[in-house]
Amino acid sequence: MSSTPSSQIPCAIVGAGGYIGQHFARLLADHPSFAPPLLIGSERNHGRRFGELWQLGDAPPAGLGEVRLRTASPAQLSSAGVHVVFSALPSSTARAYESELARRGVHVFTNAADHRMDPDVPLLVPEVNPEHLALVARRRRGRGLLVADPNCTTAGLVVALKPIWNLLRPSAVHVSTYQALSGAGFPGVASLSIHDNIVPFIAHEEEKVVEESQRILGTLRGRRVRPDGAPFAVNCARVPVRDGHLEAVTLVARRRPDREAILRAFAGFDPLSHRSLATAPHPTIVLRPEADRPQPVLDRWAGRPDRAQGMAVSVGRVRWDPPFLRFFCLSHNAVRGGAGGSVLNAELALDEGWLDPLGGGAR
Amino acid sequence: MSSTPSSQIPCAIVGAGGYIGQHFARLLADHPSFAPPLLIGSERNHGRRFGELWQLGDAPPAGLGEVRLRTASPAQLSSAGVHVVFSALPSSTARAYESELARRGVHVFTNAADHRMDPDVPLLVPEVNPEHLALVARRRRGRGLLVADPNCTTAGLVVALKPIWNLLRPSAVHVSTYQALSGAGFPGVASLSIHDNIVPFIAHEEEKVVEESQRILGTLRGRRVRPDGAPFAVNCARVPVRDGHLEAVTLVARRRPDREAILRAFAGFDPLSHRSLATAPHPTIVLRPEADRPQPVLDRWAGRPDRAQGMAVSVGRVRWDPPFLRFFCLSHNAVRGGAGGSVLNAELALDEGWLDPLGGGAR
Amino acid sequence: MSSTPSSQIPCAIVGAGGYIGQHFARLLADHPSFAPPLLIGSERNHGRRFGELWQLGDAPPAGLGEVRLRTASPAQLSSAGVHVVFSALPSSTARAYESELARRGVHVFTNAADHRMDPDVPLLVPEVNPEHLALVARRRRGRGLLVADPNCTTAGLVVALKPIWNLLRPSAVHVSTYQALSGAGFPGVASLSIHDNIVPFIAHEEEKVVEESQRILGTLRGRRVRPDGAPFAVNCARVPVRDGHLEAVTLVARRRPDREAILRAFAGFDPLSHRSLATAPHPTIVLRPEADRPQPVLDRWAGRPDRAQGMAVSVGRVRWDPPFLRFFCLSHNAVRGGAGGSVLNAELALDEGWLDPLGGGAR
Amino acid sequence: MSSTPSSQIPCAIVGAGGYIGQHFARLLADHPSFAPPLLIGSERNHGRRFGELWQLGDAPPAGLGEVRLRTASPAQLSSAGVHVVFSALPSSTARAYESELARRGVHVFTNAADHRMDPDVPLLVPEVNPEHLALVARRRRGRGLLVADPNCTTAGLVVALKPIWNLLRPSAVHVSTYQALSGAGFPGVASLSIHDNIVPFIAHEEEKVVEESQRILGTLRGRRVRPDGAPFAVNCARVPVRDGHLEAVTLVARRRPDREAILRAFAGFDPLSHRSLATAPHPTIVLRPEADRPQPVLDRWAGRPDRAQGMAVSVGRVRWDPPFLRFFCLSHNAVRGGAGGSVLNAELALDEGWLDPLGGGAR
Repeated sequence: MSSTPSSQIPCAIVGAGGYIGQHFARLLADHPSFAPPLLIGSERNHGRRFGELWQLGDAPPAGLGEVRLRTASPAQLSSAGVHVVFSALPSSTARAYESELARRGVHVFTNAADHRMDPDVPLLVPEVNPEHLALVARRRRGRGLLVADPNCTTAGLVVALKPIWNLLRPSAVHVSTYQALSGAGFPGVASLSIHDNIVPFIAHEEEKVVEESQRILGTLRGRRVRPDGAPFAVNCARVPVRDGHLEAVTLVARRRPDREAILRAFAGFDPLSHRSLATAPHPTIVLRPEADRPQPVLDRWAGRPDRAQGMAVSVGRVRWDPPFLRFFCLSHNAVRGGAGGSVLNAELALDEGWLDPLGGGAR
Repeated sequence: MSSTPSSQIPCAIVGAGGYIGQHFARLLADHPSFAPPLLIGSERNHGRRFGELWQLGDAPPAGLGEVRLRTASPAQLSSAGVHVVFSALPSSTARAYESELARRGVHVFTNAADHRMDPDVPLLVPEVNPEHLALVARRRRGRGLLVADPNCTTAGLVVALKPIWNLLRPSAVHVSTYQALSGAGFPGVASLSIHDNIVPFIAHEEEKVVEESQRILGTLRGRRVRPDGAPFAVNCARVPVRDGHLEAVTLVARRRPDREAILRAFAGFDPLSHRSLATAPHPTIVLRPEADRPQPVLDRWAGRPDRAQGMAVSVGRVRWDPPFLRFFCLSHNAVRGGAGGSVLNAELALDEGWLDPLGGGAR
Repeated sequence: MSSTPSSQIPCAIVGAGGYIGQHFARLLADHPSFAPPLLIGSERNHGRRFGELWQLGDAPPAGLGEVRLRTASPAQLSSAGVHVVFSALPSSTARAYESELARRGVHVFTNAADHRMDPDVPLLVPEVNPEHLALVARRRRGRGLLVADPNCTTAGLVVALKPIWNLLRPSAVHVSTYQALSGAGFPGVASLSIHDNIVPFIAHEEEKVVEESQRILGTLRGRRVRPDGAPFAVNCARVPVRDGHLEAVTLVARRRPDREAILRAFAGFDPLSHRSLATAPHPTIVLRPEADRPQPVLDRWAGRPDRAQGMAVSVGRVRWDPPFLRFFCLSHNAVRGGAGGSVLNAELALDEGWLDPLGGGAR
Repeated sequence: MSSTPSSQIPCAIVGAGGYIGQHFARLLADHPSFAPPLLIGSERNHGRRFGELWQLGDAPPAGLGEVRLRTASPAQLSSAGVHVVFSALPSSTARAYESELARRGVHVFTNAADHRMDPDVPLLVPEVNPEHLALVARRRRGRGLLVADPNCTTAGLVVALKPIWNLLRPSAVHVSTYQALSGAGFPGVASLSIHDNIVPFIAHEEEKVVEESQRILGTLRGRRVRPDGAPFAVNCARVPVRDGHLEAVTLVARRRPDREAILRAFAGFDPLSHRSLATAPHPTIVLRPEADRPQPVLDRWAGRPDRAQGMAVSVGRVRWDPPFLRFFCLSHNAVRGGAGGSVLNAELALDEGWLDPLGGGAR
């Protein structure tokens, strides 16, 4: 592991042993702004080499394979000088652990669901609702930030919806999903349950997609987010694909722009072009012209080259039969919809000056 | 092959070597009303043992494995005394071949797409629009019947829609599909294209589902079918599952029955209960109460026991949030949506007296 | 459930909730010699409907879907008049439970590994070593029989080896396996571990295949089995296939028969032809002449029609380059290599007069 | 496409549109010694954008996605100043085309099978038989080199065998394969043939593995290769895995080293350590200590970081029960066993001075 330049921010990954935790490690191992992360795991994984747990193909990031995971309390992380924590904790333990970290002044960027709907926690996608980051100012001084990224299905969806939202003013959004195995983490779904099969149910998923999408697309009014009012009808299913959530989307549009305007809106969407965020893809959306794209196996790593691979959202099969706009969108559930989403959130917070190295979340 | 009771109707399968053709053979090998079928194949398969081509698991039907496929013209089939032909011909060749059979007085029950939208050809699903069979009376005397079953995706969908159609009076129908590999026949999709992948495109499929569904749900006015006017927004995708098309359906309802009425409509749907059709499942729909059904691997053969296996349509995950009714339906694409659909059509025609053994389709 | 003819033997399935337990239920639901089975499950499944747990496709056997699993001790089963128990218990609990059943005079036919190598327990495959059944006479009078079937990989292998064993007198046997997901039961392997993957390790499997094969192919000398001395070199791997274990076998032969003699030995193997055992396939081996068989998806149910489906072993790609005989064999791991193996063992024991209805295993 | 430094060697890929051709493009797009390649395809692909054909996940190499494939004769390539051709031609056309290139003084490094057994064509794996490269001196002056890499299964096998070959002096080698879908190229195997299935047959594969392995492990005597005499017994099967050929290997050893010596031989194997070849992994073999490795999904890209990813051979599950040494090896069939093998051959030839830029293969 290279020595840490003094300008890099000390950080840790909690829940490092899981699938999302490993993606965090991959993204943070040589990040320009964050120091190589401490790897904090569950008691079950305490003392195990990170390389043993590695599930992402071939080798773990240079320098991290031989590291042994250890457990750590929020107090221990705070005492150790950790400034930012990336959380891939399971829902059962995230709420209290993350709150305690923030209380102690550590900034938390979390992929866990527990705090997503808290009124003072931004549910943030930098290309969609960067202004929601201001919600953190509701929290008392001295506390760390607590910023959540959305559910893996919501993350790709809201990116695909944003550029056409005002252009079409939808009266309803219909979504059916084709969700990858890794969305359930490890061990996740039993092979006999999903081999040669589709499972048309993922617990709480449809509800999350609806409420999270409405919140992210909502408007910041003072210190509250007012959710967008368009109804979402969502059907979620698990498919035998390793990575990459595909979604069939039909909007019922109130407006009637021409088709070219819609395509331009997708293809030209790059709201972070003026910032320099390491993990942001440019453009945000890859618009596929082919008849049969996007596909998980071909498009899940869109955003290449370099750090942003897996961060772009692919959109294709755009069919405009007013009032119905139909398209498919695809994103890497563990990157754009997981670890990458939170890393990008942290980069935005840093860029906005919220990660002041001297104090816990205050500016 | 057992000797043919004199009351059994001589029949043939054309396109017998393919996936649907093999399902026809499975269903007709010991059918109570139809004699064991002649197996007619393409030139490529001429002279090959049926057992060599068999793809459906283990052994072909008793008596058929050693039969050698041969080619035959419509004239030859007619001369040979074939009274009914079940067609699994590819679209490129079905139109002319089937028309010629009918012209020669042979009754044709076809799974091919070519004639489905002909005004005088019933696009028939016995549980949904049996009255459309009367369209055949438009055809000139002396001709054979020509009756089509719908596309494999449409077949399951219209069965699931029928019992709730008038109850909800939908203003729109949203469908996303999870279509099995065998829907593309053999060889179909390349393994590298679909392994660990979803392909969100099937040529002409979305258009077929829309126009066929509207026709089947339409009303017979005099000697014309007036399509149902509800708009369908359809997204089709291929998934790595061998058999069984799953569909996520959302109706936008104009009416507001209570949830129990909807469930009763699904579960009680058995419009063929008063007839004795060998291939009809009773009830037509299997309503699944579980949170995570229907699933292809568990439900594709619904309709058991006996001849009707794979003919029932499974419906589950019924969610009623007015105006949206959401559910998943599943049917065996090669049985209910293929060979079984046409066999059931022939059984209905026989029951209605259209397969008069003395003359070509006239009564 | 049909009423039990007085001649049918009262039986129970223990471990009924699992994958092998469900196959037992399928095979015993309408068995000519055994009454419909009691369904005994784990505490976790106590009170659950059998239909809820059903994983084998569509509907559970008529009459059993609505039955609720319950727990039962050996004493309770014995008191309830159960005469024969089919065991699909996990290894952790099988040993004591099965011993206690036998002590109480109940006959046990088990798929569990615990007793397989006990000197007085026949490790039995009726087509291969029926004479080993006599080992049960070592057990004290008044006790029930305890008869084991082998590991799912061994079961198919020894059937394929038997007809050529003396013909070739192998000096070594090399086996590599392609083992299906269901061999690990439910839930078994995590989907992320095996999707798009092969796992070249199954705990204890290689050792079991070696010692069990040598025992089954061994010779009964007095009241001991002397294992066959040929060394086995075995490599086991899990593959993403639902059912059906495929094995690549190379024998190093000491003898040099001609190729036709080898093929005749495989194809003509039917050592149970003179008995009337309901679950026995005839012939035992299906010799495939095609270049590319056997295959799991096409051949796992070999043995059709009727009760013996999944009980035949398919052999193909026989290549004879002395001293190497190479072939592939395939069998249904949960039928021939699981529940079906034990049912056939019970049928043999009944046929041999060991299941005297009046007393516990003595004759 | 970046401008070509004058020291880079002008090259072309023939058969660029296929799966191996795309891997060639990936490896050569920014190679230190070879200029960005011309992309030559079949007539069917003439004029198509390379990006349209791309099957390897996300984006084609920078600069190549927009290039349109074109056809070219050997004469045209020679006239265009192409110095080295990497061939991914199908067997039907490779022989004549490659011979003509060499006749015109163009050096050919081929993945095609046609010339592999020609006495004057080195069948080359740089870590195994670099001395065989001297065979090219048999060819007449003025001609281009013609160097073949082995079949995708052989390539990984001989690398795994080399370090232990003299240590164990095997009297026989037993191999069973688990071969990936991409080994059959595109379109390759039909999805219905391999989904939920294993196909225990690959045309001509077993014969190739035997004769190619014996040749590569053979000894150069004067200007001939004398094949190694150890008999190979090989069973080949296709499995539903995208990339990565796994092989179960059992050696029958004449010698009895201790286990540690065997492990050291594998782990320490790095015969190219003294050279600087861009595509060579160091060490050549990754010895896995885990109980359940190597696995395709985790190990196929071994050799990372950088250019050599997919070039290392993973070895694991080493079990030494004299006389049997059993292990599994895994390599990326399209990289080590395909395009990467030929690129490494070209790097060796360059390092050895055979690619003299002034003249056709003579030195």
